[in-house]
Amino acid sequence: MSGVFLAKHWLRDPSELQRDTFHATPFLGNPRAIEKCVRYIERDLNRTFTAKFLNSKDSNIESYEVQRTWEVNQIFGPKSSSQAYDFMFDLHNSTSNMGTCLIVDSEHSLLPMHLCNYIQKHYTRSPCPIYLYQLPEEEACGINSVAKAGLALELGPQPQGVVRADLLVQMRSVMACALDFIDLFNKGMLFPPFEIDAHKAVEHIDYPRYPDGEISAVIHPNLQDKDFLPLKPGDPIFQTVNGEDILYQGDDTTYPAFINEAAYYEKKVAFVKTEKLTFSFPALQKKL
Amino acid sequence: MSGVFLAKHWLRDPSELQRDTFHATPFLGNPRAIEKCVRYIERDLNRTFTAKFLNSKDSNIESYEVQRTWEVNQIFGPKSSSQAYDFMFDLHNSTSNMGTCLIVDSEHSLLPMHLCNYIQKHYTRSPCPIYLYQLPEEEACGINSVAKAGLALELGPQPQGVVRADLLVQMRSVMACALDFIDLFNKGMLFPPFEIDAHKAVEHIDYPRYPDGEISAVIHPNLQDKDFLPLKPGDPIFQTVNGEDILYQGDDTTYPAFINEAAYYEKKVAFVKTEKLTFSFPALQKKL
Repeated sequence: MSGVFLAKHWLRDPSELQRDTFHATPFLGNPRAIEKCVRYIERDLNRTFTAKFLNSKDSNIESYEVQRTWEVNQIFGPKSSSQAYDFMFDLHNSTSNMGTCLIVDSEHSLLPMHLCNYIQKHYTRSPCPIYLYQLPEEEACGINSVAKAGLALELGPQPQGVVRADLLVQMRSVMACALDFIDLFNKGMLFPPFEIDAHKAVEHIDYPRYPDGEISAVIHPNLQDKDFLPLKPGDPIFQTVNGEDILYQGDDTTYPAFINEAAYYEKKVAFVKTEKLTFSFPALQKKL
Repeated sequence: MSGVFLAKHWLRDPSELQRDTFHATPFLGNPRAIEKCVRYIERDLNRTFTAKFLNSKDSNIESYEVQRTWEVNQIFGPKSSSQAYDFMFDLHNSTSNMGTCLIVDSEHSLLPMHLCNYIQKHYTRSPCPIYLYQLPEEEACGINSVAKAGLALELGPQPQGVVRADLLVQMRSVMACALDFIDLFNKGMLFPPFEIDAHKAVEHIDYPRYPDGEISAVIHPNLQDKDFLPLKPGDPIFQTVNGEDILYQGDDTTYPAFINEAAYYEKKVAFVKTEKLTFSFPALQKKL
């Protein structure tokens, strides 16, 4: 609940969000879900910002979250239009040991990648791994895809329904740093070219299951909390209820993310395999 | 989800629950809530096993959980009757750092207190603090109050909606130890008198709130994860969004439990003040 708690605070007092060159508007993505302290009421809002849901008025797909998608798109978008907001931050927590993770759709998003580089250089209290979430051929479906550019923060581990003071302070500090970057960008600062490591999602891995669909093994204790650390072929990934180890069968070292994320059990994702890649980016300067 | 995962396993294969002298029946307390991965559908099942709900057929209070209360009471009770099951275990997890906590209604429950003593002596992989949950004048309202005696396990920290292998192994080992005790008791073993420390609930402490009811401060980083450790007058307990510390104003040292438990935000419980007391118990032997 770090993001929910911060957004509610900013709705009372948005002063710390403002800078010389812009006005920022805090809002709650899914107010009804927040009231019930669940991720969503009928369908996952953060998978609904796709053409299918944005463009259809088909009453068969109508649900609270689809209506909310239309509202958010109307206020902050429309998605992919010139009227859309310039930038949107989406503040998340994970039960996984994601640290202070910065999530961008892909390496093709130049402004967000410069922002990640700036955060890594200026927010030095903890490492800030970068996660590129889009799988090949996948459409951007998250709430911040409504704006022209966006960044999601994914801080963990924190249980659902809980605010931990340490993660709250972290999230607030990273947001302050990110807003400073946007202010500097607006003021015409030149951000030089750079190289950076990022973890690119490759494949979602499900839990082992019984024929009836129930989970038959849990994340192996050796893998638990080891997000973004190398996982080699032959390393244990699951442990069955009878104590047997299930080993990673891949050909290459991978860097798992979202290990044992509560919200992903229903999505059949025990963890996400990522590749650790180094990317080069050109300089960035706003034309004033 | 450690308890849910174990119970589902035992429903497939209950063999490890059986001993020479008894038959144990695994069951899921709240199947619909488990399906939706929430604590409850309409009201907290584990606060519903009171005379008010058990004895009334008033349709005004009818809900899924009240119906389930009647079912559980019919199968394993009736509560306070001679037909009731002899013992019921209730397997819980907490987002708080409760360790391997053993929960009994009060120090007046001799058999469960002997069981706690046995577990503390035989399950030595981690400390097993004892928590006596009943406040003065409070009626036992939990699911295991249906049986003649009961014990709840409260293992944490674990996020809601997650199974961690380490806590799963812990819970299973404590259950094996507890079932061994009941088997020995049934066989007529003499359990000698003993003294034991336990934490007795004294008062539920709410979060500081704005006039509109929203939380205005979170658990202080110095208090987070410090369940069952001494909290002295003047120690910080909350931190406001503006960074101010709110100090503990009590007259005496207390030992907080359930610090920052996700399920207790809605119950307006930031933590529970407990007294650490030493109790003496007489010997116990079943008449054969």
